[in-house]
Amino acid sequence: MFFEGSEKKAEIIVDAKQISLMNDLADSFWQTLVQCCNAHILSMIKNDDCKAFLLSESSLFIWHDRLLIITCGNTRLVHSVEYFIQQIGMAKIKQISYQRKNEYFAHAQLSSFGDDIALLGQYTNGKAFRFGELDGHHNYIFHQENDFQASKADKSYELIAYQICPKVSEKLTNVGLSGKEVREFLQLDRLLAGFIFDDFVFEPFGYSINAIKGKQFLTIHITPQASSSYVSIQANINLIALAPDFLRILAPKSIDLLSVNEEAFNQLTQQYLPKEYISKSLFQKKLSNNNLVSFANYILPQTVFSDAESLDVNDASHAL
Amino acid sequence: MFFEGSEKKAEIIVDAKQISLMNDLADSFWQTLVQCCNAHILSMIKNDDCKAFLLSESSLFIWHDRLLIITCGNTRLVHSVEYFIQQIGMAKIKQISYQRKNEYFAHAQLSSFGDDIALLGQYTNGKAFRFGELDGHHNYIFHQENDFQASKADKSYELIAYQICPKVSEKLTNVGLSGKEVREFLQLDRLLAGFIFDDFVFEPFGYSINAIKGKQFLTIHITPQASSSYVSIQANINLIALAPDFLRILAPKSIDLLSVNEEAFNQLTQQYLPKEYISKSLFQKKLSNNNLVSFANYILPQTVFSDAESLDVNDASHAL
Repeated sequence: MFFEGSEKKAEIIVDAKQISLMNDLADSFWQTLVQCCNAHILSMIKNDDCKAFLLSESSLFIWHDRLLIITCGNTRLVHSVEYFIQQIGMAKIKQISYQRKNEYFAHAQLSSFGDDIALLGQYTNGKAFRFGELDGHHNYIFHQENDFQASKADKSYELIAYQICPKVSEKLTNVGLSGKEVREFLQLDRLLAGFIFDDFVFEPFGYSINAIKGKQFLTIHITPQASSSYVSIQANINLIALAPDFLRILAPKSIDLLSVNEEAFNQLTQQYLPKEYISKSLFQKKLSNNNLVSFANYILPQTVFSDAESLDVNDASHAL
Repeated sequence: MFFEGSEKKAEIIVDAKQISLMNDLADSFWQTLVQCCNAHILSMIKNDDCKAFLLSESSLFIWHDRLLIITCGNTRLVHSVEYFIQQIGMAKIKQISYQRKNEYFAHAQLSSFGDDIALLGQYTNGKAFRFGELDGHHNYIFHQENDFQASKADKSYELIAYQICPKVSEKLTNVGLSGKEVREFLQLDRLLAGFIFDDFVFEPFGYSINAIKGKQFLTIHITPQASSSYVSIQANINLIALAPDFLRILAPKSIDLLSVNEEAFNQLTQQYLPKEYISKSLFQKKLSNNNLVSFANYILPQTVFSDAESLDVNDASHAL
């Protein structure tokens, strides 16, 4: 069974003088917003600074002055962004950014990145870039073009793990797996001391967790099945420093690192990444909204043949 | 300007006692066959053993007992296979194989591999495999399931080059470029002594060449533009031995090698591939039709940042 783990992501920063996303909008607003991309809310945790919704397809985080929504599968996230724009109005919005990772099954998606930004283009001017090679892992990033300048202190990180170790895949596809077992397996109590957690184990496979502590967040979404394994870890805490732990636990054959405003990206990756991972691609650009985006893909060199994956010829689904 | 270089490929082996594809079928038959996938014939060369058609989208080769058709772009090659089956009949067909590389722009294709083999499934049973990782370069291969056993002597090779050196890209996108210039640049007279050539320079970019000598063939298709460069070299002569020459000329950042029935794949790649290319994936399987398929992807490790690719936000075409 295949599942499209690859995610779309939108961040919207609002003018906190005009609106507080935490205080001024009811949960029903967010419910409708996520329904616009065919997702729904599973559960929620919050503190004074952040509200974190666990979704049927990934996560929604709300702070006073911004939101971050991440969705996987066959959602059309841009429709949720459109709903937000239509309800709140561009006048209160300081910056919209919209990101999309290349998919495993692009042909099965409801829209392409080009379609999505054409829709956003009805509301705002913007610029778009590709980080990563066209024939390899890459991220498309669109951002609104206006006088907004991001703070250098607003850092964020993504660590994506592909082709996790078969034993990990097996463990995480166990029937009856509990959230507690996954949290222990990922050593989250140790790695994220002081965070509160909210997680969900999907049927038949899949795991999501949101973790928050003050303004800090971390979210993990796992598509564990060996045929299309994908583990996405996203946070505004330094994931490059946490990479050695996650790589030891997941033992993936390939990883992506993406950071926004991590000036020390190069030094950190050299310091923390195990030397057996070889850098396949390295991209960096300072966007005109002042965000410094860095992207890297690393691989483990292969020395022995793998067997070809046998496919079900009667499964003429999106998976082929 | 983007172009989908990635190819689909079909090989059909017939019972030479019942039909000779060289002698018994008029060129008008092949004209109609290639039109079925929205390609057309540009030119043809032949000798006693082989007829090679250069197509608007790649190539068609005919031998007495088999055909090989390769098409790129947005063709639906499986419709040409269907036409052949309908006209010739399954009784004269000993083996059909159908292969598809993962595309740059899968969402823009008219069909997926799953769709294609569902259509073939109306005419024959078959098996399908994926060579290569789902999140990296890979080839889907379908083959008819019957008592056919391929001869070990039937070897074939593919060498695909990605992200060719910017200077090569520049050279091959020169306005007014001639076939002679490309042949000289690729040193084909030296590398393919005794072969006869038939080539075509496309507007605004692109180059195709067929080369034959007795039963031997080699074909090269070049999508030169830097944003989506793709050079496909396919042959039934040993391309692994020729790889050092092509790699020196094209200087790509990544290459795929695929071979059928090359028992010495491992030794040859170790002998011929420059050591700076690191093996990212290695797949091998003996299919039940006796074909031994080997696939490998190699990369050049990156040490410096590339700039992100700036995209045209108004180009909501298939390219994004």
